[in-house]
Amino acid sequence: MRVSSRGKVDPFIVMDVMTRAAELEAEGRRIIHMEVGQPGTPAPAGARVALKTALDEDALGYSLTLGLPALRTRIARLYGDWYNVDLNPDRVVVTTGSSAGFLLTFASLFDAGARVGIGAPGYPSYLQLLKAMDLDPVILQTTPQARYQPRPEDIRGQGLNGLMIASPGNPSGTMLTRRALSDLMEAAADEGISLISDEIYHGLHYEERAVSALEISDETYVINSFSKYFSMTGWRVGWMVVPEAHVRRVERLAQHMFICAPTASQVAALGALDCAEELEANLAVYARNRRLLLEHLPQAGFTRIAPPDGGFYLYADVSDLTSDSRVFAGEILEQAGVAVTPGLDFDRARGGGTLRFSYAGATEDLQEGMRRLKAFMAERHVSAGA
Amino acid sequence: MRVSSRGKVDPFIVMDVMTRAAELEAEGRRIIHMEVGQPGTPAPAGARVALKTALDEDALGYSLTLGLPALRTRIARLYGDWYNVDLNPDRVVVTTGSSAGFLLTFASLFDAGARVGIGAPGYPSYLQLLKAMDLDPVILQTTPQARYQPRPEDIRGQGLNGLMIASPGNPSGTMLTRRALSDLMEAAADEGISLISDEIYHGLHYEERAVSALEISDETYVINSFSKYFSMTGWRVGWMVVPEAHVRRVERLAQHMFICAPTASQVAALGALDCAEELEANLAVYARNRRLLLEHLPQAGFTRIAPPDGGFYLYADVSDLTSDSRVFAGEILEQAGVAVTPGLDFDRARGGGTLRFSYAGATEDLQEGMRRLKAFMAERHVSAGA
Repeated sequence: MRVSSRGKVDPFIVMDVMTRAAELEAEGRRIIHMEVGQPGTPAPAGARVALKTALDEDALGYSLTLGLPALRTRIARLYGDWYNVDLNPDRVVVTTGSSAGFLLTFASLFDAGARVGIGAPGYPSYLQLLKAMDLDPVILQTTPQARYQPRPEDIRGQGLNGLMIASPGNPSGTMLTRRALSDLMEAAADEGISLISDEIYHGLHYEERAVSALEISDETYVINSFSKYFSMTGWRVGWMVVPEAHVRRVERLAQHMFICAPTASQVAALGALDCAEELEANLAVYARNRRLLLEHLPQAGFTRIAPPDGGFYLYADVSDLTSDSRVFAGEILEQAGVAVTPGLDFDRARGGGTLRFSYAGATEDLQEGMRRLKAFMAERHVSAGA
Repeated sequence: MRVSSRGKVDPFIVMDVMTRAAELEAEGRRIIHMEVGQPGTPAPAGARVALKTALDEDALGYSLTLGLPALRTRIARLYGDWYNVDLNPDRVVVTTGSSAGFLLTFASLFDAGARVGIGAPGYPSYLQLLKAMDLDPVILQTTPQARYQPRPEDIRGQGLNGLMIASPGNPSGTMLTRRALSDLMEAAADEGISLISDEIYHGLHYEERAVSALEISDETYVINSFSKYFSMTGWRVGWMVVPEAHVRRVERLAQHMFICAPTASQVAALGALDCAEELEANLAVYARNRRLLLEHLPQAGFTRIAPPDGGFYLYADVSDLTSDSRVFAGEILEQAGVAVTPGLDFDRARGGGTLRFSYAGATEDLQEGMRRLKAFMAERHVSAGA
């Protein structure tokens, strides 16, 4: 059988790390996982209880395509609680994780060949999904000075049809200030660029709070998920907020592309929205982990870390230590037993000189990870000097 | 914000029926639902028990992209049990329902503009998904004489890149015989056409058993789901079987497009695979319902019914009664309080003269539905004669 060219998708480089880590674990070694992009915690207790009840009482058949009405209403309320935004629940579209949100957004907004700007470093699936949808990704190289976020001058005159932003970003963990976000959205509007705001790491911030694009304009697609703050990665449930005039077209596309998000996951998500106490306790662990890494990574020799505003990643410039982050991550795994993500997954051009450290895991594991990294780097320094 | 042309998707016409039915129910009328494409039964007990246990014991984070290994192995075993096919579990890809299976298949096999044949009448989402992926659907008009399935002569010389078949079909419920399937696959291979077999209604057959494309060739994509036979529509979990050489490319696409199928749903699906007794009891209800409709629909005046081989639909040619199935379905709903699906959803050209009746519901509801339809048709006959 013949195959498509859009199926020519780059593999995640971190998969090599994860495969090798699993091999080492099978040999009996203990590996510290700082490569994973998901919480170690399960869905909050309230989510699990809600689902258990529904399993006894409900057939859990297809939901309406736009989602369970109670869930859409409750998500709209979150915008009041988090951002003081009065959101019409009709604009909320429950999705099968943010992945489905991206596919729906791209299908709704762009025809084949449209040019969509994405920042580098950035979430690798943006690039690959755009390619799979026959769109033309335009990579915008961002800088540490601009908090690894695109600036108005990066998008002007590029003939862009769309712009994808993420604040807090992955892998950078950096956020756009309200002013920077506002300037960027204004520039996008001036250029006729549809702006898509990936807000999947909202709720996970440590000093300033993250600003939603919906605080600035209704003329935007916002994509969010229960995966990160709500600790529900495997449930594949998230949501979009779209302009009122787009709801029907998104609904029709979703009817065919997804039918609906998993009903059991929607029931659990509705429960999770009332688990603030447990979720804030998770956040307190991330905050502690973040302080731990910010103290010890520089001591180990990882000194050039992007402003760690939110999410649960630190992004380190290690170009003074290596020009091949894949080889470097391999050495760290083999010698220190710590799994980290090479920056090449996020930035093909410059990621040979960067690493991403996740602090979503358990604090005691990260403490051990810090000890190992310090010993590894001390040894490496000695070897290099010898 | 500008929008895409691929977002110009036809709505499901049956949605009008469902919306109006809900309004009538809100007014206190009892409506008999013969429009729905899903079982009234919940996931089997074993599925629900398996998930409850996992909710206590497992974080239910992301699964591997190709699915839980135990589930892939167990699905492979099903091919031995059902078809006497020895299937390598590595070829099984767990998907977020058959919807994700279609998206993945189209992304893996076809570039923009590829011509993909689909039979009419057929599942409406084939057409719309192909459009959303910038592909070129080629509608093949099938005939009752060919059991509403494409024949080799329908696909030859059409410049097709792909062909989607479904046996049992939706809305027709008709199946390809082993010989017809084999001839069609041979013709497709001769023409270099990639054949995709939608086997979502397998397990639901009443005389001859459904034949899998995998019994005939490994060079095909098979799409299946836990939605129908396993009574798990809302769980959004299904699977594909792909040629060995395609597994890696499908995995890479799925990493970005879906990450993984919902883990909770996968756990439940694994449980469902061991619930043969409950599922066969469900099947016995469908068999009883099918006999009921085959006896009473002709008495009501619906005499031209497609060969009812499998699934849980009957497809009736009502062109002697109406030229506008949408209006006719509206009358049936308003006057008889029975919701049925106008054929226009499945066949834009000829569906003005057809209706689909679902017998997935409870037998007592269908008995009432038959009484109402007979009374409605008798009254209509009198009015027409008056």
